[in-house]
Amino acid sequence: MRLATVHLPGGHTAAAISFGEAWFALPAYDIGALLAIDDWQEWARVHCGEPIDIRYGIASHGLSVAPVVVAPTKVICCGYNYRAHIVEMGREQPLHPTLFTKFADTLTGAFDDIEISAAAQNLDWEAELAVIVGRPIFRADIDECAQAIAGYTVANDFSVRSWQQHTTQWLPGKALDATTPLGPIMVTTDEFEPGDGPEITCTVNGEIVQHARADDLLFTPPQLLAYITQFTTLRPGDVVLTGTPGGVGAGQTPPRFLKSGDQVVTSIDGIGKLHNSIKIPQVPNWNHEQEGSSHVRKY
Amino acid sequence: MRLATVHLPGGHTAAAISFGEAWFALPAYDIGALLAIDDWQEWARVHCGEPIDIRYGIASHGLSVAPVVVAPTKVICCGYNYRAHIVEMGREQPLHPTLFTKFADTLTGAFDDIEISAAAQNLDWEAELAVIVGRPIFRADIDECAQAIAGYTVANDFSVRSWQQHTTQWLPGKALDATTPLGPIMVTTDEFEPGDGPEITCTVNGEIVQHARADDLLFTPPQLLAYITQFTTLRPGDVVLTGTPGGVGAGQTPPRFLKSGDQVVTSIDGIGKLHNSIKIPQVPNWNHEQEGSSHVRKY
Repeated sequence: MRLATVHLPGGHTAAAISFGEAWFALPAYDIGALLAIDDWQEWARVHCGEPIDIRYGIASHGLSVAPVVVAPTKVICCGYNYRAHIVEMGREQPLHPTLFTKFADTLTGAFDDIEISAAAQNLDWEAELAVIVGRPIFRADIDECAQAIAGYTVANDFSVRSWQQHTTQWLPGKALDATTPLGPIMVTTDEFEPGDGPEITCTVNGEIVQHARADDLLFTPPQLLAYITQFTTLRPGDVVLTGTPGGVGAGQTPPRFLKSGDQVVTSIDGIGKLHNSIKIPQVPNWNHEQEGSSHVRKY
Repeated sequence: MRLATVHLPGGHTAAAISFGEAWFALPAYDIGALLAIDDWQEWARVHCGEPIDIRYGIASHGLSVAPVVVAPTKVICCGYNYRAHIVEMGREQPLHPTLFTKFADTLTGAFDDIEISAAAQNLDWEAELAVIVGRPIFRADIDECAQAIAGYTVANDFSVRSWQQHTTQWLPGKALDATTPLGPIMVTTDEFEPGDGPEITCTVNGEIVQHARADDLLFTPPQLLAYITQFTTLRPGDVVLTGTPGGVGAGQTPPRFLKSGDQVVTSIDGIGKLHNSIKIPQVPNWNHEQEGSSHVRKY
């Protein structure tokens, strides 16, 4: 089963569901709100409304695709999780998942522009498989976590490397508002299984920069959820990003970062594609030295 | 003006406000919801209801004090921010605030027990001054950020050091559900000013373990907010923890951590005190080596 969230006129959002090839609107705020309903699949069959067309990110009546979940209570991300990437970087295999967070505000639609401020430098791409949680779990084992996964979607953990490296903690570079596209749809676990090794790919202006199989994970989605739920509860609609494969711009020699106008396409076979244009304002007199002199200006 | 949030029977919460020495219930979910109301001070005067007694953390009819904000969209914390502590640890003064996050689920009431699981080791204390945001701000300068602060409260960023050190990113040790007390009340900026140098103190079983003046901050509250809003929007009810002074258990030789039954009191002059009992389950056969062998068991 395939699910989406669309923007409605006036800023509201609604869930949508596909039966066969056709899509239908649902009276739920987003996929997270839908998943929180008991027996949501039956509920959706009873309550589905007008057919809509979201094939190209633009639904009928000019509606556009929103992040699959608009208001998750948690967005938790894992670094260093692709085996080949860990080997490539000469790192040791970690004993524990490296976890950091984003906010609901960090998410954006699958086809939205990615706009950063003039002060943000070194924008990089990170194609990722994202897990959508379907039921509340806390201190859950791997089997229970596997059962709690509602489905999967595509994300790009666009990262501002200059801010990520301000301190040991990555937050500022990972949580710039509206810079993590999530979508365009969620595919339920009966139709998508990462263990089947679907291809995950990122292209910049048509050039393939990341290409891996999404089963090359050191910590599988159920294992990530089991680790996370040792300390915090995951709820319907919460999002877990599973890490990015090799090929990010920061890993190249010399490092390569995104420019204004670049077209980034992020795809996972069996789910779909994100298409995002990069927008970086040109400020001729912007003094990047300000970044380094913050000791004086203190923001 | 002093504000609080109290649990109501059935699990709901409500804001409360003091006029003089008396407290009155308000029909708002928590202080965050109250602050989101335009002209909330006038609104509160018009809508205040029954008088309640929250002097000892137990309101009339057995109501207990909840976190000052129950459902913030963001809880952002700063490490390494007290000058004396930075000097004491032999660190260089950082150019940027070291930021990490908690979740709404991480918060708990000012007088609640702090319960950790048997798998969590090395629980430590971190007394902190917390900022409550009063209006939406994004890419705001220091003056605008100062104006956007609604008030201040007390927090203890209780930290599971073993989990904090699993990887470079601190999240698991900082975000165990219901382990960050926040309260008991918020005091508005017209009655509390950190620049006046109020004392911040943490005691364990009556022994003073942390004692500093809350104006010894490298990054002041408005400076922290100005940095944060360069990348993300802060909204009414959002919480920013400003860092902890010297004297944490991990910094002692040998390190000293909390035991089950320990009584921790965290106070800031002019706001109030948190009183928390530590509960750590005794599991005779718990094998802490499991922590180290996660490479095999993968959670």
